[in-house]
Amino acid sequence: MHNETSTEIRVRYCETDAMGFLHHSNYLNYFEIGRTELFREQGGDYRAMEESGLFFVVVKVNVNYKQPARYDDVLTLKTRISKLMPAKLEHEYEVWRGDDLLASAQTVLACVDRQGCVQRIPEYVTEG
Amino acid sequence: MHNETSTEIRVRYCETDAMGFLHHSNYLNYFEIGRTELFREQGGDYRAMEESGLFFVVVKVNVNYKQPARYDDVLTLKTRISKLMPAKLEHEYEVWRGDDLLASAQTVLACVDRQGCVQRIPEYVTEG
Amino acid sequence: MHNETSTEIRVRYCETDAMGFLHHSNYLNYFEIGRTELFREQGGDYRAMEESGLFFVVVKVNVNYKQPARYDDVLTLKTRISKLMPAKLEHEYEVWRGDDLLASAQTVLACVDRQGCVQRIPEYVTEG
Amino acid sequence: MHNETSTEIRVRYCETDAMGFLHHSNYLNYFEIGRTELFREQGGDYRAMEESGLFFVVVKVNVNYKQPARYDDVLTLKTRISKLMPAKLEHEYEVWRGDDLLASAQTVLACVDRQGCVQRIPEYVTEG
Repeated sequence: MHNETSTEIRVRYCETDAMGFLHHSNYLNYFEIGRTELFREQGGDYRAMEESGLFFVVVKVNVNYKQPARYDDVLTLKTRISKLMPAKLEHEYEVWRGDDLLASAQTVLACVDRQGCVQRIPEYVTEG
Repeated sequence: MHNETSTEIRVRYCETDAMGFLHHSNYLNYFEIGRTELFREQGGDYRAMEESGLFFVVVKVNVNYKQPARYDDVLTLKTRISKLMPAKLEHEYEVWRGDDLLASAQTVLACVDRQGCVQRIPEYVTEG
Repeated sequence: MHNETSTEIRVRYCETDAMGFLHHSNYLNYFEIGRTELFREQGGDYRAMEESGLFFVVVKVNVNYKQPARYDDVLTLKTRISKLMPAKLEHEYEVWRGDDLLASAQTVLACVDRQGCVQRIPEYVTEG
Repeated sequence: MHNETSTEIRVRYCETDAMGFLHHSNYLNYFEIGRTELFREQGGDYRAMEESGLFFVVVKVNVNYKQPARYDDVLTLKTRISKLMPAKLEHEYEVWRGDDLLASAQTVLACVDRQGCVQRIPEYVTEG
């Protein structure tokens, strides 16, 4: 199973704030892109998974912001699965601009059905 | 039928951009708030309408931006229904900060079902 | 010093996602609203502080998501200062819908100047 | 001068709404990406232009939405300059998913300085 991927993301103007920096909430959107791309590389398709009635919901987010990013910066997001539990998935992330680490983070996702009940993660996810 | 309402909206930090202004795309989100509030004042409940399987989708947007807004500005959004068609609804909007008109706009919404097929607007919407 | 405040926030349609829930990144924007309002109640004005050349930047965010929110839900955000350091400020947050706790969180902000150098938090902030 | 460019954009989960579609306000953010990329292909650098004290502000937006987009769709955005005035720039946009035209739009930008005063567009922009 691929359990790590690297994604290039260019900072959009609409993602900056009055301080002139990438607004800190957008990192969570970037991490979501990283998860989509990692899942795709594993041969998965998160959209198809949702259509089948299974969802990953974010239950925990920790972010450490070290340096700011600016409009038009090209960032490298590293996403990896750090822990695989029966119904939960832990990811770790790093956001780099060249050799500068801008942020590191961790999320925990839970697998649920349409009613929000916790479900065992299907094998095609964990087997990749 | 109430066909006009006035809503106070305070500009959020996350809505500003590197120029120091309210980013222009957020006006569309404000107009959506205006429509929700106007509908509520008419006795409607857009969430209940969606749960019943009818949706309003935006088919046209025109915005004229005259002056910028900044973080923490308190804006007054005026929303009114300017035209009522069997399956479409036209709204007009003005965004004011005190006596300064910051933007004016117009949207057209179409009423559709879950499959995206155009539907006659239910009477409880047009009768308010 | 007031070190706690309660803010009502209604979930906007644009803040929901395809799962039908308030997208998890928007909680960070809500916490920012809470900080603005708490600062205002303390007699401060974050916009004026920025104009004077001092900024609070987010250096750490931890969020625990317990239950989802939906479009048009009226949420109560509780924001309090949990720790005051010479150049840093720790806040704690809870997001409630009626008697249901939807999320709890913690952030750490650092006080910096225009060049991003860490600065002692001015007394008018800590004295409220 | 290149006056047209084509940009691929993948719909992010955070850009969808409870209807399951790309929220209509995000198209304005996509158009902004198209302008950045068109400017870059012309040899320009919008970030450097802002640092030199000149800005493009959006003064008019017209969008026609024809069909919805969904999470993970790969869209093709076509951006072209349709009119060049001394202090204003008109762009036209089309958003395609394969052979389906999802939206078409037009914006007008004005060139301003830090004080918001209208400025003649510098030759390096119009000469590309």
